[in-house]
Amino acid sequence: MEAVFSVDALRGFTEAVFQQMGFVAADAALAADVLLKADLRGIDSHGLARLPGYVRLWDAGRIRVDARPHIVHETPSTALVDGDAGLGLLVAPYAMRVAIAKASQVGAGWVAVRNSNHFGIAGYHAMLALEKDMIGIALTNASPLVAPALSLERMLGTNPIAVAIPAGEEPPVVIDMATAAAANGKLEILQRKGGKAPLGWVQDAEGRPTHDPFALQRGGALLPLGSRPETGSHKGYCLSALVDILSGVLPGAGFGPWVPPFVHFLPLPQDAPPGTAGIGHFFGAMRIDAFRPAASFKTHMDSWIRRFRSARPIDAAEPVKIPGDPERAMEAERLQRGIPLHQSVIEALKNLSARMGVPFPDSLQNGEEKNVT
Amino acid sequence: MEAVFSVDALRGFTEAVFQQMGFVAADAALAADVLLKADLRGIDSHGLARLPGYVRLWDAGRIRVDARPHIVHETPSTALVDGDAGLGLLVAPYAMRVAIAKASQVGAGWVAVRNSNHFGIAGYHAMLALEKDMIGIALTNASPLVAPALSLERMLGTNPIAVAIPAGEEPPVVIDMATAAAANGKLEILQRKGGKAPLGWVQDAEGRPTHDPFALQRGGALLPLGSRPETGSHKGYCLSALVDILSGVLPGAGFGPWVPPFVHFLPLPQDAPPGTAGIGHFFGAMRIDAFRPAASFKTHMDSWIRRFRSARPIDAAEPVKIPGDPERAMEAERLQRGIPLHQSVIEALKNLSARMGVPFPDSLQNGEEKNVT
Repeated sequence: MEAVFSVDALRGFTEAVFQQMGFVAADAALAADVLLKADLRGIDSHGLARLPGYVRLWDAGRIRVDARPHIVHETPSTALVDGDAGLGLLVAPYAMRVAIAKASQVGAGWVAVRNSNHFGIAGYHAMLALEKDMIGIALTNASPLVAPALSLERMLGTNPIAVAIPAGEEPPVVIDMATAAAANGKLEILQRKGGKAPLGWVQDAEGRPTHDPFALQRGGALLPLGSRPETGSHKGYCLSALVDILSGVLPGAGFGPWVPPFVHFLPLPQDAPPGTAGIGHFFGAMRIDAFRPAASFKTHMDSWIRRFRSARPIDAAEPVKIPGDPERAMEAERLQRGIPLHQSVIEALKNLSARMGVPFPDSLQNGEEKNVT
Repeated sequence: MEAVFSVDALRGFTEAVFQQMGFVAADAALAADVLLKADLRGIDSHGLARLPGYVRLWDAGRIRVDARPHIVHETPSTALVDGDAGLGLLVAPYAMRVAIAKASQVGAGWVAVRNSNHFGIAGYHAMLALEKDMIGIALTNASPLVAPALSLERMLGTNPIAVAIPAGEEPPVVIDMATAAAANGKLEILQRKGGKAPLGWVQDAEGRPTHDPFALQRGGALLPLGSRPETGSHKGYCLSALVDILSGVLPGAGFGPWVPPFVHFLPLPQDAPPGTAGIGHFFGAMRIDAFRPAASFKTHMDSWIRRFRSARPIDAAEPVKIPGDPERAMEAERLQRGIPLHQSVIEALKNLSARMGVPFPDSLQNGEEKNVT
């Protein structure tokens, strides 16, 4: 139920859709780059599958194509950025570049952002720091789908943490993880396949563990990393709360249950605290040589990576991985073979194509025979 | 099997022991304060129970009582600190104060520390930022007891993350969590009681889930937060790796399996990469008003705290907690009633008392009747 498409063709299509929405060419190209990166790295839920969602937000008047993200307040190493209700895919790289510029000047830079919306994969923004020999950090809050430990109510997003750390001869370490036990995209895959969710991903409307992949639609909630109180769900809750506070409360964006949902058919929360706007992000950049010479750090990072990669595995067929390994392998493969899209995504994009008057590309011949999940 | 002691009496005893080791009075008082804070907050594994461990390190020549932690390299917002093989309980507050001073000047301060050792509870150091209206962050690596996802080998410590965030009328949010599913101290409690560990805390020598609380002594390993691959153990591994890289690799301290163990009877690793020393920490401080006025932030933090505390609970008898609530409640209780110590800890401290010529206090009368776990 998939077909494979050329990266360039999908990129061209995505850029054209953003241009039809009214974005200037450079912005359309950047937004497309962020989305395509998700598909390339195998984070399919955050790639082109989300393009119709951004168009829906635009339809609802919740994305300004002429937004001007700007610094509201700053110190030598920090800034508060207002996203001006712009596309998160553009606001985030802007804010990350502010953090990088501050790190260049004073060693480290930290930027909290309000009045933004969904920014794609957190890892994209964190990785912008790598080319400057900096450690990059990107956090965001998101639509409330996760129940805190002991809670029936959904209060938090899957609130990801992304950190990119340069190495020497080895590739960088890139962490990009939701703070929930499993992100909603994994449930959607099971919904399509008719599969059962492992216990620990979701709870039902009474707060009991369940295998039901539709539990969320039936009043249940995603579970924080740790899943159950006895295996540390309070810790996953703490991490998600931390992301929400740094991304939401610190800049004065929506937070907790008041984060404006990505899906336009959920109502905007009406009782949000005064003085909060949009969803929020938090970015950081730290120059390696603000601590010690980059060369000696990189030698040690290479040692770290090699030692962990050679850790004795439980199963010889499944070696221990370094954070970022699976996504890097996927990107290499998809750059060569193209990007597989699920039939439901293809149909949604073809609808978008018709509506926006932008032709949707044909799939690759060789891709038709592949069966990629 | 416990007796309760006066906080002041235990503080006096601990200070006297550190003075007998050769620490000057102010240092002995600070080190005792860090240890006592753990007991007060209910993190018993990191309090007076550890005092004999520090003495053992001192016996082994691995703690310098006249150490002078110092800045090796700095920028306006960062510093590398060498702990000079000093007591972690003293090196950490020194480094945290450097971070706070830099945040006062340029908005945020970040300090990586090498050549230190065990620093007590991470939360103590993070909370130092609160009185300055700053967000405080403290990380440390630790003795390798945790297996990465898919690994048989123990490669990481329980590597805690502590973050303290000021609020307004509400108490601060204080996160202080190991990145393992459960810290070793919880296994030790089960060992004393003869209990079974919940599945998800440890794996046996073949990498299989086990209930055995002695699994670690039998060649097993602690599991990262997330416990199993299908419930996100790779995420706990990522978090622990992040703490190890920022605390260990960044400053040039020991990292991964090369972190010098706290227990003196484990050999120091002989094959550590050249140019690494001791264990490492990482501290951060961010001024709230480097982002926006502290008063409006605190109003929103109070909203966050009240909304989460009032989230509909699964069980009405177990309301949703705010990070730091349980420790704060415990501290209030123990400040009033005293600190309970397990019989095995009392015996170890009495041995220390005899050896160091420092009298050990009597337990409180009313405490003898209590049964605190």
